Amino acid sequence: MKPESSLPTARDKLLFTPGPLTTSLSVKQAMLHDAGSWHYEFNAVVRQVRDQLLEVAGLSRKTGHEAILLQGSGTFGIEAIFSTCVPPNGKVVVLANGAYGERMVQILRAARIEHVALRAPEHIPNDPAALDRLLAEDPAVTHVAAVHCETTTGILNPILELGEVARRHGRSFIVDAMSTFGGIPIDFEAAGIDFLVSSPNKCLEGVPGFSFVIARREALVACEGYARSVSLDLLSQWKGFEKNGQFRFTPPTHAILALAQALEELELEGGVAVRGDRYQRNQATLAKGMEALGFAIYLDEDVQSSIITSFHCPDDSGFTFDEFYRRLSEKGFIIYPGKISQANLFRVGSIGRLFESDIKALLAAVSETMKEMQLGEVEINS
Amino acid sequence: MKPESSLPTARDKLLFTPGPLTTSLSVKQAMLHDAGSWHYEFNAVVRQVRDQLLEVAGLSRKTGHEAILLQGSGTFGIEAIFSTCVPPNGKVVVLANGAYGERMVQILRAARIEHVALRAPEHIPNDPAALDRLLAEDPAVTHVAAVHCETTTGILNPILELGEVARRHGRSFIVDAMSTFGGIPIDFEAAGIDFLVSSPNKCLEGVPGFSFVIARREALVACEGYARSVSLDLLSQWKGFEKNGQFRFTPPTHAILALAQALEELELEGGVAVRGDRYQRNQATLAKGMEALGFAIYLDEDVQSSIITSFHCPDDSGFTFDEFYRRLSEKGFIIYPGKISQANLFRVGSIGRLFESDIKALLAAVSETMKEMQLGEVEINS
Repeated sequence: MKPESSLPTARDKLLFTPGPLTTSLSVKQAMLHDAGSWHYEFNAVVRQVRDQLLEVAGLSRKTGHEAILLQGSGTFGIEAIFSTCVPPNGKVVVLANGAYGERMVQILRAARIEHVALRAPEHIPNDPAALDRLLAEDPAVTHVAAVHCETTTGILNPILELGEVARRHGRSFIVDAMSTFGGIPIDFEAAGIDFLVSSPNKCLEGVPGFSFVIARREALVACEGYARSVSLDLLSQWKGFEKNGQFRFTPPTHAILALAQALEELELEGGVAVRGDRYQRNQATLAKGMEALGFAIYLDEDVQSSIITSFHCPDDSGFTFDEFYRRLSEKGFIIYPGKISQANLFRVGSIGRLFESDIKALLAAVSETMKEMQLGEVEINS
Repeated sequence: MKPESSLPTARDKLLFTPGPLTTSLSVKQAMLHDAGSWHYEFNAVVRQVRDQLLEVAGLSRKTGHEAILLQGSGTFGIEAIFSTCVPPNGKVVVLANGAYGERMVQILRAARIEHVALRAPEHIPNDPAALDRLLAEDPAVTHVAAVHCETTTGILNPILELGEVARRHGRSFIVDAMSTFGGIPIDFEAAGIDFLVSSPNKCLEGVPGFSFVIARREALVACEGYARSVSLDLLSQWKGFEKNGQFRFTPPTHAILALAQALEELELEGGVAVRGDRYQRNQATLAKGMEALGFAIYLDEDVQSSIITSFHCPDDSGFTFDEFYRRLSEKGFIIYPGKISQANLFRVGSIGRLFESDIKALLAAVSETMKEMQLGEVEINS
């Protein structure tokens, strides 16, 4: 039996998605080693990765922060924060304007944690003034949770302003920075962040297999006794690292070696600001090029992130997303479907090991595909 | 900054552990590709891996079974079964004779699920007759959970007999086959297994990053509405695969490509029986060789598995496990510490991409280390 996993050894298709992303060959090659999860050499890598994640955040253990790696995808990390850090009588406000805010609501519902959603339309950022009013009216709220970049659309939410409101009201602030950490600078102190969750396979350009949480140590240790789960118990996970440098349960050793390499490559590139500039150039080139081809961008420019961009599907009976997607895939480019119900969109990511030349190659393939689908002459809907 | 993750490109140290394990180079090379998690080519690999896992179990979708991949380590898979499949008024009997049985108890306690532990000493297999009495006396029990090989010691538990008792009493049967699936044949039908959880980085010789559950479909769909978690909701995870072939949340794409390759290599080796024979030869060679060097085995031969073996530490003031471990590590061999409190043990695994020649090389290194530590002449405690 020949498994289809024997992908061609030729260059992989480029991933213009919200992740998993295209990574460097050297990051993948770091996985060509089997490390012992109990072994001191591997523990040293884990210690170093945890310290480097704090460095990327502009923090350190001396500033009172801790980085905790947790097995599972980013969603597992988000659930772990709620499951570990919200007291039995706690209540969470979720700022929602897309699928990832709504997922927080689902998690809280399943965990039977009291919560309220403060929703905005999908093209409008979360409103700090609305949060201010809600917190003034509801003293039961203990935690505020927000999504930095809602990749549902690519919108950027004002976590700095939201965090200032939360702090003024003395509430704990949780940020889902899954798709931004390492690609957009985040001022932890100014935003008053207590817990931030992200993933190695977004702007850090590692591979998927775990998530990580950056926590204010004081806020973390205050969660003693709240955990509703063993697997997702962040405080116990941290205590495990502190006790003997080890994961409590089998870690994804290969994915962690990949992140160690990816963090070295982030530093070689010049750090978060320089990488962020590359992503901004990628997104600007993409937006300009797609508009020149007649595609309309869903979001207003001032709320559009550099992470991922939503485009309206052409209003043409000859256009189907499936065919468009498959034709681009055959040319070596993977884009992403839309995720909202109110508009017919598709999405194109600008993060990962992608450069302006890759964006230009994608634009050429889009142009060619439009000709093949005889979409070149038609007016494109906005 | 030079990260310590830049491990030497020379041959990795061999891992004589309960996992993560030494894998083939070709399994690791399968991770040199970035796959799109939404892409149809990757979805086809996921479908194939799920079908092949059923094949390894001697099952298929036609026999009414399903394989569900879940992000996170094996412990996440165990918690997912309890969290998804036990009704609000359910009660679980855990058969415990080691750390992994006790972990099930911890998980049930954290999830506020009613449970009772039926314990045996760590060197004694779980007792089907004791289970029979308990089930006869306690009609509230809905589920029975057992660990096939308790790697705490290496003891093999009688899941066939335990499952027969559970079935006779009409209770659901859950098996943790983390360290045995793919290396010891398991008769699902005879043992009446409803849910079995295992890991790709044990006898399947893949890499860590997720777990999988093999479920009787009828038992799975009967769990509607019980889930206490979003991340660990096995039923929703399965529905996601059925709906569009995709994971609900970002999958560890690289680790899944590695498992696809590992499953091909299992088939090339001749399947579970042939691989199981290799592990048995490994273990027999290890046991005989270590005994010849004066080490006493903790378990009686009739309950000792082919997976991992516990040895008594020498009763010699010149012996410390740390020094023994480090000296073996410097020679390229990673062994494992003990995990029980009642005896001073260390453990040596016999699974993974290891052959009799590797065991013999380890034995030579142990002999040399004993000479270095001047343990050669002393009597070794049993």
